[in-house]
Amino acid sequence: MNFQEKQKKICLDDLGICFDFSHFPLKLNWSLKRRAKRALLGLEDLQAGSIVNPDENQMVGHYWLRNPQLAPTNEITQYIENTWREIEKLTKKIKEGEILSPKGMRFNHLLQVGIGGSILGNQLLNECFPNEEMRCSFIDNTDFQGIERKLKQMSKEQVASTLVIVISKSGKTKETLNALLALKEFWQKLSLDFSKQAIAITSKASPLDQQASQENWLKRFYLRDWIGGRTSITSVSSILPASLLGMDIKAFLQGAKQMDDFCREKEVEKNPALLFACSWFLAGKGKGIKDMVILPYRDSLSSFGKYAQQLVMESLGKRKDLKGKVVEQGLSVYGNKGSSDQHSFLQQLQEGKNNFFAVFIQTYEQNNLLSYTIQNHLEDYLQACLYGTRNALKSNNRDSLLLSLETLNPSTLGAMIALFENTVSFYAHFIGINAYHQPAVEKGKKNALSFLQTLEKLRSINDPKPFELKEIAEKIGEVNEGRIFTCLQYLEKNKEIKSSKKDDKILPLFYFNQK
Amino acid sequence: MNFQEKQKKICLDDLGICFDFSHFPLKLNWSLKRRAKRALLGLEDLQAGSIVNPDENQMVGHYWLRNPQLAPTNEITQYIENTWREIEKLTKKIKEGEILSPKGMRFNHLLQVGIGGSILGNQLLNECFPNEEMRCSFIDNTDFQGIERKLKQMSKEQVASTLVIVISKSGKTKETLNALLALKEFWQKLSLDFSKQAIAITSKASPLDQQASQENWLKRFYLRDWIGGRTSITSVSSILPASLLGMDIKAFLQGAKQMDDFCREKEVEKNPALLFACSWFLAGKGKGIKDMVILPYRDSLSSFGKYAQQLVMESLGKRKDLKGKVVEQGLSVYGNKGSSDQHSFLQQLQEGKNNFFAVFIQTYEQNNLLSYTIQNHLEDYLQACLYGTRNALKSNNRDSLLLSLETLNPSTLGAMIALFENTVSFYAHFIGINAYHQPAVEKGKKNALSFLQTLEKLRSINDPKPFELKEIAEKIGEVNEGRIFTCLQYLEKNKEIKSSKKDDKILPLFYFNQK
Repeated sequence: MNFQEKQKKICLDDLGICFDFSHFPLKLNWSLKRRAKRALLGLEDLQAGSIVNPDENQMVGHYWLRNPQLAPTNEITQYIENTWREIEKLTKKIKEGEILSPKGMRFNHLLQVGIGGSILGNQLLNECFPNEEMRCSFIDNTDFQGIERKLKQMSKEQVASTLVIVISKSGKTKETLNALLALKEFWQKLSLDFSKQAIAITSKASPLDQQASQENWLKRFYLRDWIGGRTSITSVSSILPASLLGMDIKAFLQGAKQMDDFCREKEVEKNPALLFACSWFLAGKGKGIKDMVILPYRDSLSSFGKYAQQLVMESLGKRKDLKGKVVEQGLSVYGNKGSSDQHSFLQQLQEGKNNFFAVFIQTYEQNNLLSYTIQNHLEDYLQACLYGTRNALKSNNRDSLLLSLETLNPSTLGAMIALFENTVSFYAHFIGINAYHQPAVEKGKKNALSFLQTLEKLRSINDPKPFELKEIAEKIGEVNEGRIFTCLQYLEKNKEIKSSKKDDKILPLFYFNQK
Repeated sequence: MNFQEKQKKICLDDLGICFDFSHFPLKLNWSLKRRAKRALLGLEDLQAGSIVNPDENQMVGHYWLRNPQLAPTNEITQYIENTWREIEKLTKKIKEGEILSPKGMRFNHLLQVGIGGSILGNQLLNECFPNEEMRCSFIDNTDFQGIERKLKQMSKEQVASTLVIVISKSGKTKETLNALLALKEFWQKLSLDFSKQAIAITSKASPLDQQASQENWLKRFYLRDWIGGRTSITSVSSILPASLLGMDIKAFLQGAKQMDDFCREKEVEKNPALLFACSWFLAGKGKGIKDMVILPYRDSLSSFGKYAQQLVMESLGKRKDLKGKVVEQGLSVYGNKGSSDQHSFLQQLQEGKNNFFAVFIQTYEQNNLLSYTIQNHLEDYLQACLYGTRNALKSNNRDSLLLSLETLNPSTLGAMIALFENTVSFYAHFIGINAYHQPAVEKGKKNALSFLQTLEKLRSINDPKPFELKEIAEKIGEVNEGRIFTCLQYLEKNKEIKSSKKDDKILPLFYFNQK
């Protein structure tokens, strides 16, 4: 920490990161400081391997990943260190051409398949540090059209030199397994051997692990239960692809570790994550009543807001607190990049509803293609925009924070991510919720399953006569006519059935047997 | 409209769009209906060419663009029709190779340069309807690093066959002009003639127009003052690039026109935009107290949320109403795509703060690469996810609306955009604000300018002795030490000056004359 403390700014000089809260009313009263001190103790418990995710009876270990000595058992320390060694070995073999594609080609394209926490971090890393020699693309949905568009862009030769990484901790994420089905079909059509181009990252003995084992994939890496999806960016699921794409993973992990260390500082005023968490608390009165708008002034960070959106909202958006009381907590996050967003929603931030606080992110970069004059001309304006917008917001009583990175590199990015992770841990402790589970997602999945079951029953109807909705419900033994109707509509759009409206009826008649 | 009315659903059968409000408490009381009827009259005035943007003394004419006969003067009708003809002619010439690049190559890459309203619509159109033969990329910021990364990916041959479209209504948008400077330097370095590969879309006699004229660019197209940036997607600024990229622009404009027509329906219950605007009003109590989360279940629509974010927030985020009363209005918008977002922030939507309403978007697509079995398998799941999530939200008392598109094509996209535009017009009328200006942006620009001026003064210091901050302030005759310090920090990061901390001082000394 340096002299700038008096300017309401913490500078972590070793890391090249400053956290500036000069445009935020960060008043640490006695009660907030007490919360902070308790949260610090809570984080110590977490790091020591307590079951801090009681619903799932799990430890939470992402902090160990960048400091394996912290892990509560030797076995875990070894798992982490072994994983890094394995990644290093594999990266070397692929880079040096010791491992080639079945057609004898060097892998020059990485296709990553996953969804949510399994892919958002990887998309961020690739956007920050793109590799010119090894292209990278992503499949992150069960949208066949989106997948087709990506596959169409690839020639057979490109497919043959593509390394596919499939990521699913549970190994049963439907979207990811669906995409895998599509890829395997596409490879087969081209008479290529998918398994020898594929790597799985999943939990041991999961369905994906079993499939990869049976099909003899190139390699399998394992995630542990104490690695949550949204905090997996320093785990194998992001580190392996980042390593293959040439990122300095040691610097990334080291940056995160250093930030973790700063975030263990006991004096609240010197602890960046506690100060950040206090800001969130003060801004939203501990109830998330203000949205957090993330504004990085750099193209390469334009998906950071989306990354933080998941990390924060999935962690903090909870119905009950740890005592079981209904609290309906959360903190909404959005934002793309500056100065582009100035030409989008800044009008509202500046003068409209004061229902947010902003987090600006600043980085300094050096040019390597354009002339120094042009670089300076453009960069002056970018920095001027950031300055101008921050100050305009301040003068309109809109609060903001500023994170300045000396430069965006693996170390500062790792540190910034760790800052957000630590802040989420602390803030969750402030408001007394479990930040490490996501119970709500199950309900939607259950409904989706019912939809699929109804669909199946409808498809099995083999009768040429027309049916009314009520008759169909009876026929398949279901009562939820809304769901049946939605399924029928889909089947009609999909040209699997037909419908016709009878003049005297409100609802149409449906004709099966179209195939 | 068809039988589904009773199911709380409007289906615009000619357009292939249904608007479903069955999961939303859309109760139209007397006062809301009165608001709606007045808003309808307001829109009639707007369409007839009233000055509905009084601050800027302007008409608002995006509705004329898809129905030129509506325009208040013949001259405007002719301008619109001439523009479409010009676009058609140019598209034909470029497609058929009548216009070639200076190196005699066919243009096979479109590079679009603009920011905010000048580019968000274009990014959306390209994402919806990518062209396999003509690649398309965008520069939408003053970040030199972002620009360098894009330029680096292009071989000289690719640069030589790139058609550049530069879009700025005012013709003085700094970010866009900065990017233009960078592009011109890059072209020059490669000894290529930029002007013969460049098209300008701007206002007549604007700085950009003058530059393009002096440099004898390939072509210039004009925007009129009644075309706002955020409602310019049916103007030349989006229609020209879309036409070059092979989109059916007539269908797009026709879809928008048809939706406009539906939105002139006098019976509130049958007017989709009035119903949509009433939903916004009810959800946020006319004060935007709930965010709007946009969830299209289709990869190709993943930037629609960002597009709508600008359209809605820049239009509605206003400090004063039309009577001059301070109201601090707005409606915050975010969202990416389903089912990916289910693995991101759905946890919070489902169980956390009930501070939002969701707008689901559904489309039906046909496959052309994967097998029918695989397509069905993936698509069943995508639709099941949408169904499951909507219903899970409903059972947790989270409100949502659903827009179903028969399929995503230029016509339905045009219609959906027009629906949002009409809704913004109506909602702005409900709350009595001017939706067509953006006064707040000026303040930030003024601050940015001060920053640039201070920077210039600091750069002109030519004195080898060390200075304290106070001395520098005196030397350049400024009092805002905060701004000077921020500028000094930037210059130091940029290696233009140095600083050293003296032990007994809190602030460092600064050394100029580094060059």
